[in-house]
Amino acid sequence: MNAPDFPPARLPAIEPTANLPLEAKLRHKIDHKTKPQGALGRLESLALQLGLIQQQESITLRDPQMVVFAADHGIAAEGVSAFPQAVTVQMVGNMLAGGAAINVFARQHGFALQVVDSGVAADFSAHPQLLQRKIAHGTRNTRHEPAMAPAEAQAALHAGMDIVRSLPGNVVAFGEMGIANTSAATLLFARLAGVSIEDATGRGTGLDDAQLAHKRQVLAAALALHAGATQALDALAALGGFEIAMMAGAMLQAASERRVVLVDGFIAGAAALVAQALTPAVQDYMVFCHQGNEHGHRLLLAHLKAQPLLELGLRLGEGTGALLAWPLVQSAAGFLNEMASFDSAGVSGREDA
Amino acid sequence: MNAPDFPPARLPAIEPTANLPLEAKLRHKIDHKTKPQGALGRLESLALQLGLIQQQESITLRDPQMVVFAADHGIAAEGVSAFPQAVTVQMVGNMLAGGAAINVFARQHGFALQVVDSGVAADFSAHPQLLQRKIAHGTRNTRHEPAMAPAEAQAALHAGMDIVRSLPGNVVAFGEMGIANTSAATLLFARLAGVSIEDATGRGTGLDDAQLAHKRQVLAAALALHAGATQALDALAALGGFEIAMMAGAMLQAASERRVVLVDGFIAGAAALVAQALTPAVQDYMVFCHQGNEHGHRLLLAHLKAQPLLELGLRLGEGTGALLAWPLVQSAAGFLNEMASFDSAGVSGREDA
Repeated sequence: MNAPDFPPARLPAIEPTANLPLEAKLRHKIDHKTKPQGALGRLESLALQLGLIQQQESITLRDPQMVVFAADHGIAAEGVSAFPQAVTVQMVGNMLAGGAAINVFARQHGFALQVVDSGVAADFSAHPQLLQRKIAHGTRNTRHEPAMAPAEAQAALHAGMDIVRSLPGNVVAFGEMGIANTSAATLLFARLAGVSIEDATGRGTGLDDAQLAHKRQVLAAALALHAGATQALDALAALGGFEIAMMAGAMLQAASERRVVLVDGFIAGAAALVAQALTPAVQDYMVFCHQGNEHGHRLLLAHLKAQPLLELGLRLGEGTGALLAWPLVQSAAGFLNEMASFDSAGVSGREDA
Repeated sequence: MNAPDFPPARLPAIEPTANLPLEAKLRHKIDHKTKPQGALGRLESLALQLGLIQQQESITLRDPQMVVFAADHGIAAEGVSAFPQAVTVQMVGNMLAGGAAINVFARQHGFALQVVDSGVAADFSAHPQLLQRKIAHGTRNTRHEPAMAPAEAQAALHAGMDIVRSLPGNVVAFGEMGIANTSAATLLFARLAGVSIEDATGRGTGLDDAQLAHKRQVLAAALALHAGATQALDALAALGGFEIAMMAGAMLQAASERRVVLVDGFIAGAAALVAQALTPAVQDYMVFCHQGNEHGHRLLLAHLKAQPLLELGLRLGEGTGALLAWPLVQSAAGFLNEMASFDSAGVSGREDA
């Protein structure tokens, strides 16, 4: 186990999706659709993955859910973000009012949207789309002390697991909102993947050169301060954030229930990395939706050997990349379920086959 | 004019979309949405393009249409495709029966689908989704003579214009089916963009190394035979195909009516290149939906300075890439139309702004 001091019974069991007979059947089905072999490119491997997740030769996608985890970060005090911390609470309000990008895309694609207060540094009134799971009013400043106590990180993981347990459907998209959370994600990525701060750090929502240099300095110091936090859960507590921890727990739970896990951008990617370090089989259930322009995001996906569906230069988070990629997931299911085969359509195969 | 012997009155007038005051308003609107500037990446330039096409600050997308042009190619006799020519007519049948990939994606995204017999080497019974506009039973073999007579190329262009004139809505996606039509597209691309056959030629639907070398040899000989066909219409007649010519005419007509033109893969890209050579402003209306793995496709898009929306390793044609990208077009319109602004949502801007 990566985390000897974490009660193992509390992490859900995840079954790897590998199933050679089913995989052979799915490949045969995909290859005999009325198209040249491989002509649907990335959609073909996606259809295979979806079939293995559901352990079926046809795919059913039901009641897709979007969950946005929001939290604040003590390290924001170091001036690592282009936006003030107040934007976290303001953007949660914007999401609850239906005005954020994620609302537009959730409406477009029929996703139910929940926003989780994982640890925003302000209190919210009750709202039907808001889940109040606040661990604390923001993490502590990682530059000077661990972001969370181990018990807080555990509580966040468990809250994420709880949240998914109560969701309908078999698809969950994960997003986040939290000023300075690219810093937390960068620290986790640097630690868990062994990548340098230089390579892992990007401009977040829009830092200039001087601000980027400052961010790298702060993050390097934080990483050095918590040099002992090498195991996944220790790193999560020392360097992470409430929304990242909750997302990691939610991803583990979703995979344990054989749901399709739609992973958004760099911060969701860091949560995926934590989840994968805790239980590698979780990755079988993950669809990596998007690769941003940031060098770190590219490296993170390469580290996970993940092939993203979209590359549109997004750097918004919220889960926007996951929802933008969703129609491709439906298309993969659609061609597998609905396309005619060469036999059924009476179409000739290759001349050399 | 590129084509002095083509009656200029018969090509529709296309108004460039450039409009500096509107562009400034659109940029302001995009930049004041509740997101960091540029954070929606490629969707932002797409929203700007859509606004300019419609000459509006909000975008309305109505009744999207999918038109698949099908034709046969005399050059198929040279063994340049992995599939026998009969597959063209069989795949048209498959599309009319609803079993092809393009049917699945058209149903998914609510596109009305029409299949045009532009010049298939077989006759079809009437079908509500089939438009019979056959110019001839396949082109002649470009390796030995011009693919079309000039009057045939003209007739095909005009048929494409007619077809679009009768379509509802303000969005048209273009696709094609035609065994050996990557050869025609490659020849047109090589001629109109001045790219070598070596660079322009790919594996089509799946040639091996020896087959690819043979295809290159055939295409180089065909290109040399028609060395005099340098103007767009001459090249189209000598080297092209009925479906490519009809698609080019359809694209010109769609742009003249300020419709959004969704361009699929390499063959649709060659039609776009022909249309652009005839009337450069047509490109203002084109959304390049997809870049395939083929080197030639990459070069073609680079030649047009086009930035594709998707890169999924597709090599199917039919218009599949256009329909897979469609939700992104809707998302670009959606964020422009529906997202809150910093002012309207009460969200703080950048600290350094």
